[in-house]
Amino acid sequence: MTTELIELPLQASADSGLSAALVRWREIVGDAYVRTDPATLDTYCRSMLPPKYRHRPAAVVLPESREQVRRVVQTAHEQGVALHPISRGQNWGYGAAMPPRDGMVLLDLRRMNRIVEVNAELGYAVVEPGVSQRQLADYLRDRGLPYILDATGAGPEASLVGNVLQRGFGHTPYGNRILNVSGMEVVLRDGSVIHTGFGEFPNACATHVFPYGIGPWLDGVFTQSDLGVVTRLTVWLFPRPGQITGFALKLDRADQLFPAIDVLRRLRMGGIAQSTVHVANDLRVISARRQYPWELTGGKTPLPPHIRQHLRRECGVGVWNLMGALYGTKAMVRAAAAEVRRAFAGIARVRFFDHRKLRLGQAVTGALARIGLLRGLAGTVESARSVYDLLCGIPSAEHLRGVYWRMRQPPRDLIAELGNTGGLWFSPVLPATGEYARQLLETLEPIFDKHGFEPLITMTSVTERALVGVVSVFYDADSKAETDAAAACYEELSAAAIARGFWPYRSGVQKPIRSPIRVSVSVQT
Amino acid sequence: MTTELIELPLQASADSGLSAALVRWREIVGDAYVRTDPATLDTYCRSMLPPKYRHRPAAVVLPESREQVRRVVQTAHEQGVALHPISRGQNWGYGAAMPPRDGMVLLDLRRMNRIVEVNAELGYAVVEPGVSQRQLADYLRDRGLPYILDATGAGPEASLVGNVLQRGFGHTPYGNRILNVSGMEVVLRDGSVIHTGFGEFPNACATHVFPYGIGPWLDGVFTQSDLGVVTRLTVWLFPRPGQITGFALKLDRADQLFPAIDVLRRLRMGGIAQSTVHVANDLRVISARRQYPWELTGGKTPLPPHIRQHLRRECGVGVWNLMGALYGTKAMVRAAAAEVRRAFAGIARVRFFDHRKLRLGQAVTGALARIGLLRGLAGTVESARSVYDLLCGIPSAEHLRGVYWRMRQPPRDLIAELGNTGGLWFSPVLPATGEYARQLLETLEPIFDKHGFEPLITMTSVTERALVGVVSVFYDADSKAETDAAAACYEELSAAAIARGFWPYRSGVQKPIRSPIRVSVSVQT
Repeated sequence: MTTELIELPLQASADSGLSAALVRWREIVGDAYVRTDPATLDTYCRSMLPPKYRHRPAAVVLPESREQVRRVVQTAHEQGVALHPISRGQNWGYGAAMPPRDGMVLLDLRRMNRIVEVNAELGYAVVEPGVSQRQLADYLRDRGLPYILDATGAGPEASLVGNVLQRGFGHTPYGNRILNVSGMEVVLRDGSVIHTGFGEFPNACATHVFPYGIGPWLDGVFTQSDLGVVTRLTVWLFPRPGQITGFALKLDRADQLFPAIDVLRRLRMGGIAQSTVHVANDLRVISARRQYPWELTGGKTPLPPHIRQHLRRECGVGVWNLMGALYGTKAMVRAAAAEVRRAFAGIARVRFFDHRKLRLGQAVTGALARIGLLRGLAGTVESARSVYDLLCGIPSAEHLRGVYWRMRQPPRDLIAELGNTGGLWFSPVLPATGEYARQLLETLEPIFDKHGFEPLITMTSVTERALVGVVSVFYDADSKAETDAAAACYEELSAAAIARGFWPYRSGVQKPIRSPIRVSVSVQT
Repeated sequence: MTTELIELPLQASADSGLSAALVRWREIVGDAYVRTDPATLDTYCRSMLPPKYRHRPAAVVLPESREQVRRVVQTAHEQGVALHPISRGQNWGYGAAMPPRDGMVLLDLRRMNRIVEVNAELGYAVVEPGVSQRQLADYLRDRGLPYILDATGAGPEASLVGNVLQRGFGHTPYGNRILNVSGMEVVLRDGSVIHTGFGEFPNACATHVFPYGIGPWLDGVFTQSDLGVVTRLTVWLFPRPGQITGFALKLDRADQLFPAIDVLRRLRMGGIAQSTVHVANDLRVISARRQYPWELTGGKTPLPPHIRQHLRRECGVGVWNLMGALYGTKAMVRAAAAEVRRAFAGIARVRFFDHRKLRLGQAVTGALARIGLLRGLAGTVESARSVYDLLCGIPSAEHLRGVYWRMRQPPRDLIAELGNTGGLWFSPVLPATGEYARQLLETLEPIFDKHGFEPLITMTSVTERALVGVVSVFYDADSKAETDAAAACYEELSAAAIARGFWPYRSGVQKPIRSPIRVSVSVQT
């Protein structure tokens, strides 16, 4: 994930500035950690994005400590070289590890992967940008700590800090991640180091638990920002509750989505559902389980409606599918589940699942599958299991399988091969009403069809009143024609959505969006 | 409440700058709304604070629209005059309407009191700074809208916007107010107007429901800030749930507080208690019901332990008292209540109350009081009722009664006479553990005693992991000696707490605390 972007303007003296900076950086981090060789730079350009959006860095610098970051940034500032920091480079459909323009220098923070502190009493972890979801989840599991981590679908290797700084979201009660962190350590553009919240005040005891500090609350300005490099962050952990019950709705008709979203909003606003709820269309769920049915379509795209319907039946998937979870004591979850069931009555039946039920389901469907029956159901159970893992804070690579939808070959390694696939993400925000959802889909769906793609869309209730859409254009990266079509489709999708007021919650290197408001931060010395 | 502070440095040419500005301001807002007469300025200096902390403004300007604010601010900028904006001036123990230094010009926003929009579907209100808690609560009640407002104890006339900008807190699930707002409209120091979040993007549909927008999230930097004047804000409303059950614990021994706070933290972190929970010592509860027992102490201060114990018995109050509420469906609240009861078992019995029980209690105690019995119990029920109102989002002036604790005469009008009372608030933040609470109290309590006061302390679980203390030094403003002692006590309390790392969550004009980090915001033109 990209941490944030330091766009110091390249000066006229850029080349000589870069040469001088490279010399200095080699002194700071060591020769082995300043890379300019083409093979290394190539690996940083690997991406799901069409070639037209790819940018090549001039060099990569890999510091291992806050002090090294400070000196590297200071040098870049003095030499007028543009730096682009990345945490672990897994910002998939938004540009992976790539800088937003050619010739910038990547500041790759993956070596800074220390879990600095885990406080078991107050439930927080202080981490560096190189710490992955898996790393912290494993740490908690191995030590038997009674906490769950908020997990995203970006895969186990994604950086926690990078995702927070992009204002990414996960699927637990702490899914709106930016509200569940505290105490940033930031290296500013001139190399000075600051701490947000109480971190700047001597001896402060509440830095990790009360983000706001005194005076202006700063954390927000370092997200989706080019104001500094975050080198340390406190991430809050959610106490593992007595009961986690997943719930799922399959909507068999497209028009059931709209009343369902109105119900979802009321459940979220009323605190009945305390975590993000995920809404996915048929193909987004199907694509997480299987690739495009080239064999059934005779190689044609986009997917004909009758085959789409066939796949829905085969995979046991609705036209739209809602999935979320309830967290608490057994009795609290039972009471919330009753309300969820009641609220959706008349729209669809809510199915509830937990660890125990899934184990049972796996045993049953495994047995049936062995005698050749109920293949679809086994897939459903397997899919529910991987979603349930995510709801329980266990990161998994499975949710990235959809990126291979239009590829002709199945992946051998889901993450290692992502750079060979084709995918673009656009993520419009909408007020959580059926009417806005209808408008958004009316805007997007015909554009997919026009360009020869089928819509793959999710909407997640990141706040109580808003949904964040993730609109995926997955394409066969081995086909030049399909790659060009994907880029054209993406451009038209995002332009059309924005024209109707559906601005995205984050932008990728393929279409950077900048606010006209300029902020600067400095330290009084 | 103070909105925020524009501290443009007073130039050498200050006087002529002010004269020129006054002329220009009279053209902008009209003669009647630019006040420099001593009588008017006097009213803006009325405060609970000791005279040594009082500052007198040079003038007061009262604009009625965003456009007037823009032109007034621009004029101040051009003329080098320092402005201090206030929303409704009810920033009680932190300085009321006063500027942070002599000679600043107050920008009083009370005339901007429009409820611009209430969206009944998405549950939000767009308000100007002059809108009071009462005004919005009445609006919702009169139209039968199924929402509750988050209410603070600052009284019905306090500004919603001003309190949010000070990062104040209330007592419902939206008690951490800064997390339940969106879409600021801000006049910057140079008079340019910006909108935070998606507000800056044409046609954006999610401005009121998704605060973050795209690019740096800015709302935080306009809180406790001197970067601009917030002229409009979206405040989220909480859907009135089927059941609101208050809960209360009376702790009979001081040492029971510490395990109780550990339990409270676990309940808050686990989402069992979804709203702020208020922890108050005996005297803070008692002071909300009656004044200092001058008659029992023979006029002596501080309060002798045996009389303190007597008052506790008389008022039915514990050494420490916890109060919060559970919100949801009846079944959810019942399940959460069971968990709350279980969690505190072994510390104290939890009492639950709601509308129905309080009505019954009032009928019974009213009858008993008429025959001269159970005066203490009636007080308990009455006090529980006013707290329950607050938990239900109904603002009340009752919670300000404590400010009269050391005064010799009872107030006729709680709010109108606050300027004649004496009070100073210091609000240290602590991690929500028994151990930190013990350290804080050990630090504070002897200092109260040393200066002839008794501790009045609350701690509120504003975030899941932290408590915000409000430490009150109430004094007899008619006594010069007691006023001086209060100031000395306050200074020593805040210095001692800060030395142990307990920094406050906000500062008042009596002791401004500034972060060394400087932020600036501008618009690219």
